[in-house]
Amino acid sequence: MPQNKQIVLDNRPQGEATVDNFKLVVTDTAPLQDGQVLVQNHYLSLDPYMRGRMNDGKSYAQPQPLGEVMIGGTVGEVLESRHPRYAVGDKVVGMGGWQQYSVVDASKPGTLRKVDTTHVPLSHYLGAVGMPGVTAWYGLVKIINPKAGETVVVSAATGAVGSTYAAVAKARGCRVVGIAGGPEKCAYAVNELGFDACIDYKAHNGDTRSLAKALKDACPDGIDGYFENVGGWIMDAVMLRMNAFGRIAVCGMIAGYDGAPLAMANPALILINRMKIEGFIVGEHMEVWPEALKELGQLVGSGTLRPRESVAQGLAAAPEAFLG
Amino acid sequence: MPQNKQIVLDNRPQGEATVDNFKLVVTDTAPLQDGQVLVQNHYLSLDPYMRGRMNDGKSYAQPQPLGEVMIGGTVGEVLESRHPRYAVGDKVVGMGGWQQYSVVDASKPGTLRKVDTTHVPLSHYLGAVGMPGVTAWYGLVKIINPKAGETVVVSAATGAVGSTYAAVAKARGCRVVGIAGGPEKCAYAVNELGFDACIDYKAHNGDTRSLAKALKDACPDGIDGYFENVGGWIMDAVMLRMNAFGRIAVCGMIAGYDGAPLAMANPALILINRMKIEGFIVGEHMEVWPEALKELGQLVGSGTLRPRESVAQGLAAAPEAFLG
Repeated sequence: MPQNKQIVLDNRPQGEATVDNFKLVVTDTAPLQDGQVLVQNHYLSLDPYMRGRMNDGKSYAQPQPLGEVMIGGTVGEVLESRHPRYAVGDKVVGMGGWQQYSVVDASKPGTLRKVDTTHVPLSHYLGAVGMPGVTAWYGLVKIINPKAGETVVVSAATGAVGSTYAAVAKARGCRVVGIAGGPEKCAYAVNELGFDACIDYKAHNGDTRSLAKALKDACPDGIDGYFENVGGWIMDAVMLRMNAFGRIAVCGMIAGYDGAPLAMANPALILINRMKIEGFIVGEHMEVWPEALKELGQLVGSGTLRPRESVAQGLAAAPEAFLG
Repeated sequence: MPQNKQIVLDNRPQGEATVDNFKLVVTDTAPLQDGQVLVQNHYLSLDPYMRGRMNDGKSYAQPQPLGEVMIGGTVGEVLESRHPRYAVGDKVVGMGGWQQYSVVDASKPGTLRKVDTTHVPLSHYLGAVGMPGVTAWYGLVKIINPKAGETVVVSAATGAVGSTYAAVAKARGCRVVGIAGGPEKCAYAVNELGFDACIDYKAHNGDTRSLAKALKDACPDGIDGYFENVGGWIMDAVMLRMNAFGRIAVCGMIAGYDGAPLAMANPALILINRMKIEGFIVGEHMEVWPEALKELGQLVGSGTLRPRESVAQGLAAAPEAFLG
């Protein structure tokens, strides 16, 4: 059995997280028991939710235990198997964590999933055809549920979630408008990701009315659906442009600088426009994953959805890449 | 044909509405055309939405035209009919407006509905078995959709909506907790309306944390559903006690003293607790009325729901009663 490099959470951040919160350890890998599979992890997904788990406070997520391997989604290849459904060489997706190798009890449902890499590159199972993709899909399809011709908006438009959202929305005949930070990201959203328009929120300097005006220009028929990744004044601006019976899927909400909650300026708009606002965490809706992954896999396979990836090399680089 | 006393909107309120905004006029009633029905209005419903319509500004409701009979729900009796489905003596519900008699084109769908007064007193068709009742029913059944054993809360608990909400929620096996202003109203809610508990918000003086503490005592298992009639700090307090996957039906939202919007203090709770918040206007969901009215009529007929009514005598008293 190979030696295994792992990254564990050594201590909790005081304020900003730093590389000193993590520790690289080397361990031996125990021989497999019946039902277990040894996976070599080729790619590890570094996601914002991990930062929340590094804290000990009350949150919707369990805290990451100290001294244990950091949790994380992985894709890799079966090196050895004592489970009849997995063979050496199979490509698999799981929650292998921040380590080179993982020993998985493959008989537990949901721990490991074989994937096809003929049409979809392996790494995409951590992005557009993985959790970020299903997140975008769930918010758009299950909460916003747009009709063809409707206008849908997303903040953090050029991220893994935003880019998938654009592809799925376009495939369903919507006008899709992004919100992102800076002219380069906005140009990228329109030229590469298929957005019909993208608004640079940094040009509006926290001025809700000014951003709402830009949204009016980009969404002449108003906004029917919105996928919220940020909250605060950007959400306030979008709410001013929502149509009657508009739907907002809430996936991310930043806090203020001191960690205090950020208010919603005008909740009466929920009534005035008979809106629906719904928060969700995609890991709680595993029942939709097969349907979502099928559509997302087809969009990637057909070239409609061409995810951009940022890949760091080597496990030791993970803490720095994560913090970046 | 009888002479008809009517109350028309004479001029729009500057700030608070007064009796001088209304004018009493007397007109002749034109002879009936084919398909028309003459109704004597026995009861007129005076509802908060009417105040919004007296303004000219943008709102979710059409403004009440100047010089025309004030809009309003009525119950009454057919005096004369040139429509085959209506006979003299039939009891009917409609939107007859603030007048003694109305001439109704009975062939237009939705203008008039015959009701049974054997089990349900006529006036209740404007309350528990009318728009306020269906409002409570829609928010509770269609948006909150509680399971037996769940805890549901309503603000403005002793009003027509709140009292119906309590009866429907109890019939579905929920714990139901009210929020109302003053110890008398709270005692009435518990002793007469069937609430399991009722919290006097006036005892908490606008202190969100204090009200949230009282809600924790009254709702030891947290809150699964909330029917919002007011908004502001009361909603903030309820949101602090909502359980994961809680649902909030938004039916009323007050503005601040100067008409400015009141903020929602901590919208991040929508995500943290994966809540759904939905605004609605019951008049836009006519398809549910038959189902709702059937359940509400049975609750009144069986004595489970015993609505209290505040009845003013005489059409001329309507403006004063409405403003009160």
